[in-house]
Amino acid sequence: MKVTIKDIAKECGVSTTAVSLVLNNREARISAETRKRILDTVEKYNYRPNKLAIGLLKNNTSTFGIIVPDIGNIYFAELCKGCESEARKHNYTLMVTSANEFPDNNMQYFDALIDHQVDGIVYVAPSNIDNHAIHSICSKITETKIPFVAVDRALDLPFAKSIVNDNVHGGYIATKHLLELGHRRIGCLTGPLCNRTSSDRLQGYKTALDEFGVSYNPALIMEGDFTVQSGYDSLAYMRGQDVTALFCFNDMMALGAYRAIRDYKLHLPESISLVGYDDIFISDLLDPPLTTVNQPAFKIGESAINTLIALTKNDASADQVVFTPNLKVRSSTAPPSQRP
Amino acid sequence: MKVTIKDIAKECGVSTTAVSLVLNNREARISAETRKRILDTVEKYNYRPNKLAIGLLKNNTSTFGIIVPDIGNIYFAELCKGCESEARKHNYTLMVTSANEFPDNNMQYFDALIDHQVDGIVYVAPSNIDNHAIHSICSKITETKIPFVAVDRALDLPFAKSIVNDNVHGGYIATKHLLELGHRRIGCLTGPLCNRTSSDRLQGYKTALDEFGVSYNPALIMEGDFTVQSGYDSLAYMRGQDVTALFCFNDMMALGAYRAIRDYKLHLPESISLVGYDDIFISDLLDPPLTTVNQPAFKIGESAINTLIALTKNDASADQVVFTPNLKVRSSTAPPSQRP
Repeated sequence: MKVTIKDIAKECGVSTTAVSLVLNNREARISAETRKRILDTVEKYNYRPNKLAIGLLKNNTSTFGIIVPDIGNIYFAELCKGCESEARKHNYTLMVTSANEFPDNNMQYFDALIDHQVDGIVYVAPSNIDNHAIHSICSKITETKIPFVAVDRALDLPFAKSIVNDNVHGGYIATKHLLELGHRRIGCLTGPLCNRTSSDRLQGYKTALDEFGVSYNPALIMEGDFTVQSGYDSLAYMRGQDVTALFCFNDMMALGAYRAIRDYKLHLPESISLVGYDDIFISDLLDPPLTTVNQPAFKIGESAINTLIALTKNDASADQVVFTPNLKVRSSTAPPSQRP
Repeated sequence: MKVTIKDIAKECGVSTTAVSLVLNNREARISAETRKRILDTVEKYNYRPNKLAIGLLKNNTSTFGIIVPDIGNIYFAELCKGCESEARKHNYTLMVTSANEFPDNNMQYFDALIDHQVDGIVYVAPSNIDNHAIHSICSKITETKIPFVAVDRALDLPFAKSIVNDNVHGGYIATKHLLELGHRRIGCLTGPLCNRTSSDRLQGYKTALDEFGVSYNPALIMEGDFTVQSGYDSLAYMRGQDVTALFCFNDMMALGAYRAIRDYKLHLPESISLVGYDDIFISDLLDPPLTTVNQPAFKIGESAINTLIALTKNDASADQVVFTPNLKVRSSTAPPSQRP
């Protein structure tokens, strides 16, 4: 049987009120000796006052929730770590739920977090649902009045706070780097194009081409799904298109491309140049290290929690935080080889 | 203001009992038309019956919690995915909390999960606390009577169910593979040795040496901390010891060793053979692919949830599940080079 406050009070020979006062560190005329007896008994039984019941009354559980598309994606794991670290500093506990790219799970997880009375939610929408669906989910959440921050993949939510990355700029700097090296046939492996993240990065790609007077060729664009496998699979098509460089819209797909390049007995960067997106920690450990667009996942997580904390305090100052990515040039890119 | 069951009942012109009956799918003489009106209104306001309040009464929230040492470690992320997948099949929601290797956070997270009335907890103890501390934490949890499964790093808990890996065997097969290739000076980068996981793997290492008549040399053993950085740092020492092979007790440290090997202008496997432990997905994508001890993280996660579900049903059949690891031989190992 679970130990209750009544059991503690009975064993100590005091009232439940006395136990409660001591546990809540309230000023009260309770002798040091009694206080010690109560605390010892509480410890002996590992008694936990039912915070959930208190939370129901006080509307405060000191817990935040985060919903990420895939906890196995290193980028999201890093983002969660940033959230966790900042939440801990402010004495919040973070509960992570991962929808694992099942869009239907998103509402389920929201419901679960709301049922558990979290004080706020950080939401990273999955890549495989369109902006309309994201808006619909986000507006439902907004109706529940729970403090809520959309991160990374959700944009243009007039009713929600968001932490966004300038994906147009990210697509632009990656493509510009390849153009400056002399590449003209640049393959582009996007994520699901129904989603704003990918369409924005593609917009950046087009802008850079335009600036260099290179016409846009739809045959060089392939729609991926952000998984390692889709990066691997893209290479057969891209080789057929005779590209000299490939821009993958995340590092997980670039990882797959590394593997395919090795299987085809090609060499990085001599046979083909490769650029990724995210700068997950593994990118720098690859051989050769991957040139990629850096997104500070940990910092983005910290920022999301700070926005959430501001919201719980009804501080409406922070409206939208925008992170501008930068390019980490490593050794997976080089000028195109001269064909014989 | 949050919509309550009274608001729904009032708008529909029915009793709160009628709303409750419809929402709980109970048999009742309520017309299809009224039922639809109630459900439409519930949807219109995105009304959520307060499951937490219900959970307090019913002692059931359809939620499991998991505590992992580090969500940024790909192995644990994969384990969480296995838990999530199996939990979802059984209509449970999984809440992940990551202590990020701060041992002090472990009790905090337990407390948070218990406060949130999860129906059960999966616990992966951090590597940097000793067996005594793990036992103390686990026995505290056991006292709360919450169904609880210890995974991976916690062994010898007579009072708790556990899912364990045969780490002695894992250490043995990795070392035996290197011995069979002809290596005799085999460096060993362990995790924290206060922890059973590492001491068991080291035991396997010793057993294999013994079998091959190679005497154990403590100078070849180095204590790491399971991070990429500690793998990187180990190489300077191991080179000084003139090892021809290195066995890292997880793949994250092996990743660091790859980087160091490249920085020292050495070559895998010609200059040095390398074996990891875990078989995280990235191991197969490295160049050359890493020979490593496979632990089926996803399956281990599924198994943990199944044990937890059995416990919630007071089914005491599953006592301890043991996974026996196997070796994935790839290309990071080869016979030692002949020295000139």
